[in-house]
Amino acid sequence: MLNSLLLSALSSLEKEEKRQRKESKLIQQLEKQQQKKREENEQQVQQEQRESKGRLYTLSVALPGSVMDNAQSPELRTYLAGQIARACAVFCVDEVVIFDELREDVKSVEGDFRGIGKKGQGCVQLARVLQYLECPQYLRKSFFPKHQDLQFAGLLNPLDSPHHMRIDEEVEFREGVVLNQPSKPGLGSFVNCGMRKEVQIDKQLKAGLRVTVQLNKSQNKDISGKVYKGVVVAPHVPRTEGGLYWGYSVRLASCLSAVFTECPYKDGYDLTIGTSERGKNVDHVTLPPFKRMLVVFGGLQGLEASVDADENLNITDPSVLFDLYLNTCRGQGSRTIRTEEAILISLSGLRQKIAAVFPDQFKG
Amino acid sequence: MLNSLLLSALSSLEKEEKRQRKESKLIQQLEKQQQKKREENEQQVQQEQRESKGRLYTLSVALPGSVMDNAQSPELRTYLAGQIARACAVFCVDEVVIFDELREDVKSVEGDFRGIGKKGQGCVQLARVLQYLECPQYLRKSFFPKHQDLQFAGLLNPLDSPHHMRIDEEVEFREGVVLNQPSKPGLGSFVNCGMRKEVQIDKQLKAGLRVTVQLNKSQNKDISGKVYKGVVVAPHVPRTEGGLYWGYSVRLASCLSAVFTECPYKDGYDLTIGTSERGKNVDHVTLPPFKRMLVVFGGLQGLEASVDADENLNITDPSVLFDLYLNTCRGQGSRTIRTEEAILISLSGLRQKIAAVFPDQFKG
Ligand SMILES: C[S@@+](CC[C@H](N)C(=O)[O-])C[C@H]1O[C@@H](n2cnc3c(N)ncnc32)[C@H](O)[C@@H]1O
Ligand SMILES: C[S@@+](CC[C@H](N)C(=O)[O-])C[C@H]1O[C@@H](n2cnc3c(N)ncnc32)[C@H](O)[C@@H]1O
Repeated sequence: MLNSLLLSALSSLEKEEKRQRKESKLIQQLEKQQQKKREENEQQVQQEQRESKGRLYTLSVALPGSVMDNAQSPELRTYLAGQIARACAVFCVDEVVIFDELREDVKSVEGDFRGIGKKGQGCVQLARVLQYLECPQYLRKSFFPKHQDLQFAGLLNPLDSPHHMRIDEEVEFREGVVLNQPSKPGLGSFVNCGMRKEVQIDKQLKAGLRVTVQLNKSQNKDISGKVYKGVVVAPHVPRTEGGLYWGYSVRLASCLSAVFTECPYKDGYDLTIGTSERGKNVDHVTLPPFKRMLVVFGGLQGLEASVDADENLNITDPSVLFDLYLNTCRGQGSRTIRTEEAILISLSGLRQKIAAVFPDQFKG
Repeated sequence: MLNSLLLSALSSLEKEEKRQRKESKLIQQLEKQQQKKREENEQQVQQEQRESKGRLYTLSVALPGSVMDNAQSPELRTYLAGQIARACAVFCVDEVVIFDELREDVKSVEGDFRGIGKKGQGCVQLARVLQYLECPQYLRKSFFPKHQDLQFAGLLNPLDSPHHMRIDEEVEFREGVVLNQPSKPGLGSFVNCGMRKEVQIDKQLKAGLRVTVQLNKSQNKDISGKVYKGVVVAPHVPRTEGGLYWGYSVRLASCLSAVFTECPYKDGYDLTIGTSERGKNVDHVTLPPFKRMLVVFGGLQGLEASVDADENLNITDPSVLFDLYLNTCRGQGSRTIRTEEAILISLSGLRQKIAAVFPDQFKG
């Protein structure tokens, strides 16, 4: 009897324990779920914060490569290209399009060129200097082998944009190059991001690729690991999520009209602006909302010459090509403004107008 | 009786004639007076038209000569000075003040210098290139003897301002140099104004003087005379009466504070603006009415360094020196903007604000 009582007591004790175990498991599961929910919420908030911090519009600039012929020496030719690169960086230009108005029929920056000392070949030379300056310094030896066009690169002023990181800067995003260094199957490639250690990414990618890496948080401080960890993201992510200026891409166009027709954005440019002293006074203009702005500059002879040289265009008045055709320097004290000056002047005038459309981007 | 009647009739006839003569004389006088009045009115209207056409405010720019040390070669040093000159011309700057922030104790552009190839002496070298470019081409051999600082002047882009006339341009005002060519007593000196013939002015002036000449109207077409005729006017007249941009004067200042204390305008500058990325966002600023605006730029180390170097200033924060301390490029995509870029960017941003204060100047 005692035995049976004891047994029953023990069994009820066991049952109770079992119940409790079950309960605590349930509680744990619940807590886990709640934790997950909390994390998801946090992530969503972070995502939203990011999105509101992010810049959702883009700014493209187009100009003819012939501007290079307006420089008086090989050194000044290089310097001029550098001025254009800097102007684009200062005003957060995302895409620079260099169009051919001399019908030199250049299509790519690859191949053999005669070096920057000569006349002509302005499009490719300008493109090369622009690309060189845009590339973070620690990646240059991977992407810019010795080249005549870069003979005077030592004279160039650096862009000093946010994506040109110093070695110890603690940042969320970095540009890198995939290294030719085998990693274990299932693990990602190693990337040189200009840090003290390499970054192992989430994917296996071909060596030599340029990638944008999002680094896992606060590991910069962790000096124990052999490598840093990160994931590859699309190059627009630092801009669209972090609101950071992330350099420009460079595109060659065989003529003025190809600037428009070969637009890399799915829906094309939705606000196009031509610039000319014969344009409308910018002071009286308010910009409409936009997502993809394009601002086009002419060369020595203005956009009239670019239109003339374009076999696809049967017009003489360039203004019909654009949503807005603007004089950005009413009352100018010089008969002509050089293209490299006009870029700084026009983008400075337009910056205030863009700020009115996107006040969050230019707060403070 | 008849006789007396006749006599009286004759005498009354005479009286009537006399009266009529008197009356017509009076009418003539009246008409003359009215004519004079009309002419005076017309003149006044013309004067007023001129004045409304004229620009009554001035714009001064100040920057340290040390910016020259931020160029990498003697050629680029020259080119940099030229960029600054062009930026000032494009935005109709009337006075450029170059201040010394390295305490080199330079006071004049005269004397022997070591040539533009060396470091230092930035103030004088910059001043010399600025003056050289401002001078109309046809006057350069009179005012700019061969000088080391101008060794690379061939690389400079011309200002192409309205006062740099082509030989056959028909204009109201011209810059000229008084010639060493005797004229008859009572008649004025001969002046080279860069035209096909010399201009005889209304005064006898010392040979070698640079003068601003107002040419008598429509005589350009008159090919019979041996010389053109004109009168000497103050250098501000083309601006204040004709609304023309007429180049800038160059002033050296031994330190930042001397930019203010040695102001050549009677009542000093009435709107002073300092520029810095740490300034207030220019987008939120409306300019008050002004007559003498001064915009000050810093060098490589910003205006903080200029304040530090100035023994007369016991402050550390440059902003207290100015009516407004402005960031003219909110959201910049480069960590630093170079001074020569900042001039174009800032004056472009401010141009829109100035246009709001003086809408007549920027019509159309
Ligand atoms: C040397 S200018 C062209 C001058 C040419 N003679 C003309 O009349 O157009 C080179 C380019 O600078 C830009 N530019 C010059 N002045 C400008 C102004 N006041 N407003 C806007 N853009 C200007 C235009 O893109 C122009 O095609
Ligand atoms: C190379 S920057 C000076 C940079 C220096 N490290 C600083 O923080 O001031 C040279 C000059 O350009 C002008 N500048 C540069 N960025 C500017 C901005 N965002 N707004 C207004 N002026 C600027 C200022 O006059 C500055 O002194």
